[in-house]
Amino acid sequence: MIYFDHAAATPLDKRVLAAMQPYFSEQFFNPSAPYAAAVEVKRAYQDAKHRLAVCIGGQASDVAMTAGATESINLMVHSARGHIVTSAIEHDAVLNAVKTREHTLVAPTKKGVITADAVRAAIRPDTELVTIALANHELGTVQPLRDIADVVRAERRRRFEAGEATPIWLHTDASQGAGQLDLHVSRLGVDAMTLNAGKIYGPKQVGLLWRQANVRLRPFIHGGGQERGLRSGTENVPGVIGFATALELAQRHRKTETKRLEGLRNGMQRQIVAAIPDVVISGDQKHCLASHLHVSFPGVDAERLIFILERQHIYVATGSACAANAGMRSRVLRAIRLAPDVADGSLRITLGCLSNQAICERGTVAIIAAVQSERARTRR
Amino acid sequence: MIYFDHAAATPLDKRVLAAMQPYFSEQFFNPSAPYAAAVEVKRAYQDAKHRLAVCIGGQASDVAMTAGATESINLMVHSARGHIVTSAIEHDAVLNAVKTREHTLVAPTKKGVITADAVRAAIRPDTELVTIALANHELGTVQPLRDIADVVRAERRRRFEAGEATPIWLHTDASQGAGQLDLHVSRLGVDAMTLNAGKIYGPKQVGLLWRQANVRLRPFIHGGGQERGLRSGTENVPGVIGFATALELAQRHRKTETKRLEGLRNGMQRQIVAAIPDVVISGDQKHCLASHLHVSFPGVDAERLIFILERQHIYVATGSACAANAGMRSRVLRAIRLAPDVADGSLRITLGCLSNQAICERGTVAIIAAVQSERARTRR
Repeated sequence: MIYFDHAAATPLDKRVLAAMQPYFSEQFFNPSAPYAAAVEVKRAYQDAKHRLAVCIGGQASDVAMTAGATESINLMVHSARGHIVTSAIEHDAVLNAVKTREHTLVAPTKKGVITADAVRAAIRPDTELVTIALANHELGTVQPLRDIADVVRAERRRRFEAGEATPIWLHTDASQGAGQLDLHVSRLGVDAMTLNAGKIYGPKQVGLLWRQANVRLRPFIHGGGQERGLRSGTENVPGVIGFATALELAQRHRKTETKRLEGLRNGMQRQIVAAIPDVVISGDQKHCLASHLHVSFPGVDAERLIFILERQHIYVATGSACAANAGMRSRVLRAIRLAPDVADGSLRITLGCLSNQAICERGTVAIIAAVQSERARTRR
Repeated sequence: MIYFDHAAATPLDKRVLAAMQPYFSEQFFNPSAPYAAAVEVKRAYQDAKHRLAVCIGGQASDVAMTAGATESINLMVHSARGHIVTSAIEHDAVLNAVKTREHTLVAPTKKGVITADAVRAAIRPDTELVTIALANHELGTVQPLRDIADVVRAERRRRFEAGEATPIWLHTDASQGAGQLDLHVSRLGVDAMTLNAGKIYGPKQVGLLWRQANVRLRPFIHGGGQERGLRSGTENVPGVIGFATALELAQRHRKTETKRLEGLRNGMQRQIVAAIPDVVISGDQKHCLASHLHVSFPGVDAERLIFILERQHIYVATGSACAANAGMRSRVLRAIRLAPDVADGSLRITLGCLSNQAICERGTVAIIAAVQSERARTRR
């Protein structure tokens, strides 16, 4: 198997599963129960939250565990009452959540960059939330979040000086790139951050929403009052412990892993460009996740490429996995104004722990052969 | 270890973990991805939903997977626009979710029964939802759901004949007792049902909301459109497959397991009553989950009993685990009008797979000894 879709899902790391295992069976107690064995489980759970908080330079008390990035994003958006600024290339979770609110979609550059200037222009006096993903899920473009944070801070200062009471917060979905980028919230300058275990070799449907203490969240799941009342429901003890292990591993190895993936990705890119000179590489080459390679073959049908490749057990995506099933052209590619016949020939190749030199070379050869055979077929 | 708190949490069944395991590592693909390996995972996921639906006599297309019973309940409550009828002894998930809506709390009888007559009296012309748990989480009392369903159906008929357009639905949280009771939705006469994997030896934070096709749900988590748009977020493939295995096992063995637990529970009850004649047994003895034994020792402090017992590795609850941490007197015990000095001496003993004859006998002896030593201490 050659797996080029690490941005859609990742296998559970063995060390993560090993960390989770005791909490399935022996340590299965309900963390809210009063006896010592349950209190010990609660301690392990809180310790995991602390470890997660340390990875992002935050406080455990400011972290709410959720059932994944989509829920975290919805919780953040639901908590804003005023206008929201986001981008046209966000994940569907953001784009569909903000539909319930007044919002402005900032257009990206052709490289998929959301500039601080564009965000500044979109902010209104009643804007309460700016939400921009740290790295784009399709293109891998890493956003200039620090510059955007400066814009949000400047607006906050302006409101303070003008005596305006409306708060403004910057939230980022850092699910993509958590294995490669620095997630330190104060270095990024964000007020809230969403993370997901399922993209970094942790369990599916485990996520978190961190926000600094004065960002007020309005929960939509009420009940036993877990997560300080922000997200009720018996805690996912093994899931959260697995997430902590996964994030620690991801952050510990992120520099060496980024270097490794960069080498593999650049090699693939060179090979493809050499064989198919009219290939279009999208995303910001200078500020791109090392895992991502977005290639478009004009005039070729990407869905056919996927079928040809899957017969050789090579798994690659067109656009994002979430949108793929809808059979629609990717919103991201429309937003960066990629011509339709180019967009329709797009593959999103994303590398990760299952990628190595041999696999990448074999995969690249197969992709090139598939494109060439498709072009030969349609030319006939 | 002697575990008497199966109503709060259950260990993962080995067969359930075995069913989940392949979907952590080899079959980790995102079900929304387009290639064959992912489509196969999607098929396994949908097959698990089908198996869950079969267990309750419903259609897989009417089942939405959630991150647990609390979320399912909130999704159901959030979907009702009009008045809601529920009971004063529901789980906190219901009692806190309905706070966002106009609602009436039906009082239980002293045995913790919600009668059909009481529900009938609470229904108003604008009532859209009646939600009553199949079995009470603290007392184990099994509610006369079929009679309540008749009341709801009669109101629906009345509205139809009167030309009134307001719908009325009956939802039940069947999380407690899913290993002992018949969950067939049409035999129960319900329009919607919540279930939880974590109470039946399945994984934590996995639940479902079934509703018949014409019950309209209003999602609060938006995104990639999973679960037919009702609950976005990458699917918890191992969790849902584990849930299906757990529910099948629970339903397959429910009759023999009920008989077994009944024998153990009745034995404990006889022993306790013989040794401590003024013990108060709460709940409806004729309609009670076989797993539940709710005992109150007047004048004794239950929290002290728990500390004495935990030193002997005997784990038992006061009230429900969710509310236990809040240090408040149980709402359920207040609602059934148990005198405060009786309520404060209450233990909820709940049996399950970790219970057998020897364990129950040893546990009972220890409970009796603890009560007697506490009484001796306070008498001094």
